[in-house]
Amino acid sequence: MHTDLVAALDIGGTKIAGALVDGQGRIQVRAQRPTPAEADGDTVMRSVEAVLGELAASSLWGHASAVGIGSAGPVDASAGTVSPVNVPGWRDYPLVAEVRAATGGLPVELIGDGVAITAAEHWQGAARGHDNALCMVVSTGVGGGLVLGGRLHPGPTGNTGHIGHISVDLDGDPCPCGSRGCVERIASGPNIARRALANGWLPGPDGDISAAAVATAARAGDPVAVASFARAARALAAGIAATATLVEIDIAVVGGGVGKAGEVLFAPLRQALTEYATLSFVRRLVVTPARMGTDAGLVGAAAAALTLRTDPAAAGV
Amino acid sequence: MHTDLVAALDIGGTKIAGALVDGQGRIQVRAQRPTPAEADGDTVMRSVEAVLGELAASSLWGHASAVGIGSAGPVDASAGTVSPVNVPGWRDYPLVAEVRAATGGLPVELIGDGVAITAAEHWQGAARGHDNALCMVVSTGVGGGLVLGGRLHPGPTGNTGHIGHISVDLDGDPCPCGSRGCVERIASGPNIARRALANGWLPGPDGDISAAAVATAARAGDPVAVASFARAARALAAGIAATATLVEIDIAVVGGGVGKAGEVLFAPLRQALTEYATLSFVRRLVVTPARMGTDAGLVGAAAAALTLRTDPAAAGV
Repeated sequence: MHTDLVAALDIGGTKIAGALVDGQGRIQVRAQRPTPAEADGDTVMRSVEAVLGELAASSLWGHASAVGIGSAGPVDASAGTVSPVNVPGWRDYPLVAEVRAATGGLPVELIGDGVAITAAEHWQGAARGHDNALCMVVSTGVGGGLVLGGRLHPGPTGNTGHIGHISVDLDGDPCPCGSRGCVERIASGPNIARRALANGWLPGPDGDISAAAVATAARAGDPVAVASFARAARALAAGIAATATLVEIDIAVVGGGVGKAGEVLFAPLRQALTEYATLSFVRRLVVTPARMGTDAGLVGAAAAALTLRTDPAAAGV
Repeated sequence: MHTDLVAALDIGGTKIAGALVDGQGRIQVRAQRPTPAEADGDTVMRSVEAVLGELAASSLWGHASAVGIGSAGPVDASAGTVSPVNVPGWRDYPLVAEVRAATGGLPVELIGDGVAITAAEHWQGAARGHDNALCMVVSTGVGGGLVLGGRLHPGPTGNTGHIGHISVDLDGDPCPCGSRGCVERIASGPNIARRALANGWLPGPDGDISAAAVATAARAGDPVAVASFARAARALAAGIAATATLVEIDIAVVGGGVGKAGEVLFAPLRQALTEYATLSFVRRLVVTPARMGTDAGLVGAAAAALTLRTDPAAAGV
């Protein structure tokens, strides 16, 4: 029996993934297309429709009662539109209305991709059982989402938890977002690599200059590589501590490519948290690696759709 | 008719204020005692009881159905205890149980003082009608509280919105809280004055070296005084922008002594916000002076008690 299926879409700058997901968060059917990121908006939408069409060809489709979308941001859940930075053809694009039309009128819930990851970690992963949590992706960019009072808190436009673009260094380096000293500007993978190279780190014979290569060097004891991760850890700690101080989270879950670096990141991160999370009510804050894998976006989008179905008042659209 | 009265307590390091407040937020009866801040915990409690006793002597007392307490922090609403920094005799002091006992068993709601101010501004003041708001007090310290999704959001321990102790300068000056570069360390009244003096500001013949005196000098064009307020404004802007980016507030209300400085503060604050609040979903954020006066703490504590009465599930205790 699949009476509790929802359709899920995970829309990024590289791929558009779709799935039919059951009430226990298990993926029953999958579909995927590359994102034609440089194409016009309608062409991008044709790829979304191709994914939905492949799902609709499944015999299970008839059991799908709602659609959840996790999209690269910014999104505007109140308007049902998306403007992903890496998909220039979509600016205030009416994705919710288009998906509703493409699915014969199913109810649609839209959230940002950081919020979707958070929904997944809260439902099935490292934030399960925590009523107040920050979940983050530290990768090419830094994103996140919040669980407050036991519930996903997408916020009015679905962008809550955007920790990558809070400033922890108000006189710091300019960030592409227009601000300065943002967490992402210091802690993202490309910035970890950039800083290591600028301070004299020499990549190996394979020429790999990724943050993963810096992590390998750090594990081998390279002091410049260690220092670059420590700097990223301080920025993450300041941002996590700020979040805890503002909204009383008790756990921070860190995933994404940089989050996979392990103790090279987590050891200095835990140390730095003791320096920035100082007030009594945030001292018990713990930081832990993410547990959901690459399906987190799909599972989280499904979780949002299930919430919509069971609690229409909570829906953003 | 006063069928909807609640008792309110506003407990600070200087005074303990009490009131009977009606369902429209009007204060019907008042009482006040100095806080014996250096005394032992039980002695401080005797002053609270004296305030409650004076209220109980009113013919209206019989209509009071609940007690709201806004206390200097940190508080722990989940445990019903308070540990105000400026009242060393109270550490994990069971204020809720003591007040319940002193009032014959009335239900008691405890929140931090920044949360209380926020409740007042949301109910009656500058945040009225806003579903997502940050309200701040910028004074000797910097505190605050949050309204999220149309409701006061005290958080599990009643300390949410503690914006004074988020770091906006991760390499900055040590803060008494143990962290570095906190908003309070840069933007509080004493720090505005300290920075002006350190940079060569000369107080007037009256020797007044308060932030208010720096504000007067700034209004007269003193560049060092102007610069000190501009620096405070940048720290406040970075903190407000971080809050908006994390939880999607659309208004920030700034009160307290420094908040009363007017355009000397608000003009550079609005300018700095355009530099730090850059993402699409926070660009419409507005900052505005507080409207509630010195009764904000009492009115906010009353608002929390009224919420308790109408929605026991929302109560922290």
